[in-house]
Amino acid sequence: MASDFDRIRKQVRQFVVEREWDQFHSPKNLSMALIVEAAEMVEHFQWLTEEQSGDLSAEKLAEVELELADIQIYLISLAEKLKLDIVAAVEKKLALNAEKYPADQVRGSSRKYTEYKQS
Amino acid sequence: MASDFDRIRKQVRQFVVEREWDQFHSPKNLSMALIVEAAEMVEHFQWLTEEQSGDLSAEKLAEVELELADIQIYLISLAEKLKLDIVAAVEKKLALNAEKYPADQVRGSSRKYTEYKQS
Amino acid sequence: MASDFDRIRKQVRQFVVEREWDQFHSPKNLSMALIVEAAEMVEHFQWLTEEQSGDLSAEKLAEVELELADIQIYLISLAEKLKLDIVAAVEKKLALNAEKYPADQVRGSSRKYTEYKQS
Amino acid sequence: MASDFDRIRKQVRQFVVEREWDQFHSPKNLSMALIVEAAEMVEHFQWLTEEQSGDLSAEKLAEVELELADIQIYLISLAEKLKLDIVAAVEKKLALNAEKYPADQVRGSSRKYTEYKQS
Repeated sequence: MASDFDRIRKQVRQFVVEREWDQFHSPKNLSMALIVEAAEMVEHFQWLTEEQSGDLSAEKLAEVELELADIQIYLISLAEKLKLDIVAAVEKKLALNAEKYPADQVRGSSRKYTEYKQS
Repeated sequence: MASDFDRIRKQVRQFVVEREWDQFHSPKNLSMALIVEAAEMVEHFQWLTEEQSGDLSAEKLAEVELELADIQIYLISLAEKLKLDIVAAVEKKLALNAEKYPADQVRGSSRKYTEYKQS
Repeated sequence: MASDFDRIRKQVRQFVVEREWDQFHSPKNLSMALIVEAAEMVEHFQWLTEEQSGDLSAEKLAEVELELADIQIYLISLAEKLKLDIVAAVEKKLALNAEKYPADQVRGSSRKYTEYKQS
Repeated sequence: MASDFDRIRKQVRQFVVEREWDQFHSPKNLSMALIVEAAEMVEHFQWLTEEQSGDLSAEKLAEVELELADIQIYLISLAEKLKLDIVAAVEKKLALNAEKYPADQVRGSSRKYTEYKQS
């Protein structure tokens, strides 16, 4: 049975194919489109306090939801072009992160690996 | 049955909880972390031609895979904090995009909605 | 007499010419390099509170100073390629901003033009 | 005599003070505003070829000029808040870059320092 993520992956792919947009979708271009969408997310939060950013109005949240989708859509397109499996990539990275940031050493600290490792 | 995307969502959540990093994860901060990871993706492609960006060495592709994962991980964390469902958001956005960019009107063109709409 | 900004503009130009890097400096590529540097700045601040971001250690400030320089360097390179005058552009934009955001209407508010204009 | 860069620095400062926007201008927030503007620049180039990006229409170039200004304006505001001198920072960074990337070793190559150094 196809998973929900498989389903949206296929929908994203179909959307691009139907519009013949594949010709514009080099990984280079897709990385640019991705960061542009990420910036639209940042824009929503740039003048808010951290607290306000966690307490959005329903209207604002609906806008943010669509930005979230845009980022996911370009991330899927980029993965497709590079023939990478996002789910497998995340599991691989989480395993690496677990080694780099052992829970009992980094608990409650945002210092980066390189920083706490040296101390 | 939990889907593969559910599975990584739970793993991402557990990773953060175990390290007590939730306190740093305001949506504002997560949007910053997300764009920083998106920029690390862009960095891989900045001096490549579009063609080169689609023909990466195995070594480079392995690095890009981990960047892809980082972006997905922060996107999941951001969605969690905002109590948004990424899969539902993507389906909602694709439906909106289908209205905005009818396949038979935009085929083969990268012009934005606003641009072709005016012409 | 050449101004200080003219001086760094010439130094940036000379640096690129001496290394024959001009061939990589399409505006597209430079916009990517620019945002990558901007993200390195964001990275310094992503887990800091707003207050902490205004009270950096001398060591951190020295790193931030170099990121600031990197952004300025790519901005100068981009302006050069596009044959645009940064100082003139800023003066033009400030004049437009003064019209869009009249001091007596927006004082103390971060709401965007579009938002307060509608209200 | 005040230089042209001093002049725009003062204009940017005055603009912010008159609107009492200083309260929103933590370095953290300014780094976000800066990257949002950098992304608006990227957006202009995302679907263009490198060649097209160097051959903009007059209309497009006028838009790009204003984006350029926005980036410079936030960069100035950020430097002001951190009490950093942009011109001095650029000269410091160019001196470091000249050591890292000796012209006779890197000529014509976009490989990063770390990459060619290892080879």
